[in-house]
Amino acid sequence: MADGKRVLIVGGVAGGASTAARLRRLCEDAEIVLFERGEHISFANCGLPYHIGNIIKEKDRLLVQTPEQMTKRFRVDVRVRSQVLRIDRRNKSLAVRDLASGREYTEPYDVLVLSPGAEPVRPPVAGVGARRVFTLRSITDMDAIKKLVDEEKPPHAVVVGGGYIGLEMAEALVERGLQVSLVELLPQVMGTVDPEMAFPLHQELRSHGVELLLGTSVTGIQENGPNALTIQLSNGQSRDAGLVIMSVGVRPEVNLAREAELKIGDRGGIAVNGHMQTSDPSIYAVGDAVEVVDFVGGHQALIPLAGPANRQGRVAADNICGRDSTYHSTQGTAICKVFSLAVATTGLNEKNLKRMGRRYEKVYVHPAHHAGYYPGASQMSLKLLFDPQDGRILGAQAVGTSGVDKRIDVIAVAMRAGMTVQQLQDVELCYAPPFGSAKDPVNYAGFAASNVISGDMPICHSEDVADLSNDRMLLDVRNPAEVKGGTIPGAVNIPLDDLRTRLHELPSDKEIVAFCQVGLRGYLACRILSQAGFRCRNLTGGYKTYCAAQGVGVQAATPARELKSDTGEKT
Amino acid sequence: MADGKRVLIVGGVAGGASTAARLRRLCEDAEIVLFERGEHISFANCGLPYHIGNIIKEKDRLLVQTPEQMTKRFRVDVRVRSQVLRIDRRNKSLAVRDLASGREYTEPYDVLVLSPGAEPVRPPVAGVGARRVFTLRSITDMDAIKKLVDEEKPPHAVVVGGGYIGLEMAEALVERGLQVSLVELLPQVMGTVDPEMAFPLHQELRSHGVELLLGTSVTGIQENGPNALTIQLSNGQSRDAGLVIMSVGVRPEVNLAREAELKIGDRGGIAVNGHMQTSDPSIYAVGDAVEVVDFVGGHQALIPLAGPANRQGRVAADNICGRDSTYHSTQGTAICKVFSLAVATTGLNEKNLKRMGRRYEKVYVHPAHHAGYYPGASQMSLKLLFDPQDGRILGAQAVGTSGVDKRIDVIAVAMRAGMTVQQLQDVELCYAPPFGSAKDPVNYAGFAASNVISGDMPICHSEDVADLSNDRMLLDVRNPAEVKGGTIPGAVNIPLDDLRTRLHELPSDKEIVAFCQVGLRGYLACRILSQAGFRCRNLTGGYKTYCAAQGVGVQAATPARELKSDTGEKT
Repeated sequence: MADGKRVLIVGGVAGGASTAARLRRLCEDAEIVLFERGEHISFANCGLPYHIGNIIKEKDRLLVQTPEQMTKRFRVDVRVRSQVLRIDRRNKSLAVRDLASGREYTEPYDVLVLSPGAEPVRPPVAGVGARRVFTLRSITDMDAIKKLVDEEKPPHAVVVGGGYIGLEMAEALVERGLQVSLVELLPQVMGTVDPEMAFPLHQELRSHGVELLLGTSVTGIQENGPNALTIQLSNGQSRDAGLVIMSVGVRPEVNLAREAELKIGDRGGIAVNGHMQTSDPSIYAVGDAVEVVDFVGGHQALIPLAGPANRQGRVAADNICGRDSTYHSTQGTAICKVFSLAVATTGLNEKNLKRMGRRYEKVYVHPAHHAGYYPGASQMSLKLLFDPQDGRILGAQAVGTSGVDKRIDVIAVAMRAGMTVQQLQDVELCYAPPFGSAKDPVNYAGFAASNVISGDMPICHSEDVADLSNDRMLLDVRNPAEVKGGTIPGAVNIPLDDLRTRLHELPSDKEIVAFCQVGLRGYLACRILSQAGFRCRNLTGGYKTYCAAQGVGVQAATPARELKSDTGEKT
Repeated sequence: MADGKRVLIVGGVAGGASTAARLRRLCEDAEIVLFERGEHISFANCGLPYHIGNIIKEKDRLLVQTPEQMTKRFRVDVRVRSQVLRIDRRNKSLAVRDLASGREYTEPYDVLVLSPGAEPVRPPVAGVGARRVFTLRSITDMDAIKKLVDEEKPPHAVVVGGGYIGLEMAEALVERGLQVSLVELLPQVMGTVDPEMAFPLHQELRSHGVELLLGTSVTGIQENGPNALTIQLSNGQSRDAGLVIMSVGVRPEVNLAREAELKIGDRGGIAVNGHMQTSDPSIYAVGDAVEVVDFVGGHQALIPLAGPANRQGRVAADNICGRDSTYHSTQGTAICKVFSLAVATTGLNEKNLKRMGRRYEKVYVHPAHHAGYYPGASQMSLKLLFDPQDGRILGAQAVGTSGVDKRIDVIAVAMRAGMTVQQLQDVELCYAPPFGSAKDPVNYAGFAASNVISGDMPICHSEDVADLSNDRMLLDVRNPAEVKGGTIPGAVNIPLDDLRTRLHELPSDKEIVAFCQVGLRGYLACRILSQAGFRCRNLTGGYKTYCAAQGVGVQAATPARELKSDTGEKT
């Protein structure tokens, strides 16, 4: 039990505040002191870009708990603007500086909880320290950015880095009327998903006027008069801007831990066991500063997310109070709004799996988010990664305007429960026309993956089609009207409904790669062809995925009737 | 294999059409004949009310597959307006009447699939056969209702029965400008959820002008001139209306099966095994006409839903083609839109559990559907039913304007996977402010249920509070401003944040029932009280659930700041 124990907590946002609240719920007698270097605790970190974008109008809404409220409700001694300078493990004490007075003092602990978070990386380029170059982590950062936008109304901003914060800031600044250039070193934004799933984001960003500079980095920043910066780019060009947002990633804040000689993991985060204990059993660590076990891969990973931080806080508090509670692993379920699109992911992406040399297969489906015949149905793209031998779900990604969060959540839970792709076929989900389909997108993804495993649907991928050899033939089974809008070079068109009567036109000595718009008619074609003795593969995800993988927009919209039958809805 | 087999399918909507399509995908050589008594196959059954309501404007959108399309794509011999009169099991043939010509003929089968569906019940009251009394099952029914509404513009309609169809039709007719009276025998609409979860629907219906006549039945219908009906009610009143929708439920269509002496189950549906085979191994049956195993209870049940019907069709087709595929059970995941609300359910409800004498406990949470600080957050009510000993999830229900489908889907998958409520605490779901919270409503429900099981939070329910005895005391821990809007009679108010300093005001010889608005502050109060030596229970779901259980609206809105801390969001 933590009865009468002194528990000091360093860092008062997600992990720290959760630990403090849970500790108090479990133990009225513990003495709990929470140190926070900044002015605010328990604020809505993830809401910062939305206040800058004027979507969340009142700043107060971001302050989930003020220090006063936290003190009143949880009897926690909250000390803001208090920087913890050192951990003295031998004497079990902290050296703390009160930033207001400059006073330094020592505070003894029985148990220490580190929740220092992660700090934004500032790449080492000249001029990165200029006043108009911002990172966004705290309320103070947010206030400074918002003040500059409000007061100076700069016409142009450069956002460096296309991850969560970069994308949300690009949107926020566009909402504020700025012309935004987004500079990203990789050839895609949102590195947590695979390139073909990020492609719709590129279209969305450009359609909202964002200048996308992919495969590009910043090489220098010059102050250019009192109100402007000139940003030099690796492509030799430059941009003038009134402000720069540096959002190239975060690194765990491990200085205190490292100086105290706590074990730091290979990935650079504080090493902890399942109880969230560091190498010193009296010191726990939680949140973005720690390394976690990746749920799918089993390897150590840095996965800075709010949900896991909160859960780790609970686990630490439980163990401090003598309860045997374990944090198992992080799955990396995450989502980001990019204008009217949402992009979400759980588990590992294909890039990870490749890097790890892990056996995997993938399927794509593009179903409507609810019954196609009910107004407002919008098509999503869903990618499912799985083990082609045992059907284990390895990861999923989705992008679309609606219902993306639901499908990734459903798959995330299925993964966590150890379900296979075969079991996804049969999950029984809510259906009424305004909410879903009798066969949900998750069921469809399960069908497609299971058909691959069972051998009912041999598939191939866009990257296989690129190097099409002579012993393969591309068969477009869409309608001529669809083909007019564009097809894969070299493809022969026989509409699905004519296929049975035109089998004689097909070569028996070649493998036929069938494709349609989204993959369903291609599957039906393959079933016909393989039963007729042809060797055949279906291009999973169809022409739509092919285009996304090539980084080009689909020209032709799918005719309504074909979309209807392609998504195969019933009832 | 079904190679060369003659497979006859009776009924061409969800189950039948799915069977046909799957059969053809698996076997090009089978001869497949689909008989449908009506004019349409594979139509969007669940969309019918929305076309009447002019939400789905084009009728064609409801026709997922026309007979011609089905024939072209799947080489199925589709015979609409063909009534199957008899099954001759000995000779393995069907007697069929072509309704257009009146011709009767015999059709032999190797395998027969019955997918006759369920027919709307017409209660045996005088006048139920009048021209203006409708049921809604087919496109033809829909056309007739829509024509009457379009042409006669009746000012008033009576909808009898407050289940899915009744609610959707009430909404559709209100959308068309009719004054609607909804007559329901039970004291609640939407009998698949429990009364306190249906209560918000009553408010919603009334706020849209629907006259709710609960606990009421129709005792007779008179034609009252050429354009009107008079509907007599069990309460002695009557209503005049231009049309009546009879939506008091459906019963499985088992006439063909019964006459062929196939086994009929205790619940009145066609009995099938896991392969969807009837008592005659050559005859399969799928869809609303069959009895299924209830996933949670293990008993036989009639659960007419589109998703399960489709899945059963797949399973039947698999087995016909020699694949060993099993339909395990139906969970009853379902959702209904009621104006701006959605109500969804999965698993068993409390009424079922009580009737079965099953051990259960329940918790309620009322979190926001996404981060409360992001614009548009709306509160939902979520009820979780579970086994208080092993934590097994027995059912869940939710009602709210947004995000209800997602949470029930997530819980449905967790149930299907055999997860416990303890595991719901840790499911890792998508979080960004526009989509969720770092602690999702599903996590909250898991926390609450787990706290009950661990003993951290003894709870009680609204029904316990009703018969409050002398050795219990009701403690309202909300703020005075909230209490002004109404509280439970007899409750003493001590705001949570003052509780620690006012413990001396509480009796040590009574059990204290603490409550707040939604249950979180009540929990915190219980933690403080129990650690201070008091016996204490938290009223799960708080004053909000109490009011819903009493069937009264909550008067006072929760102050934003308290809602914020009540939902306990971090980051």
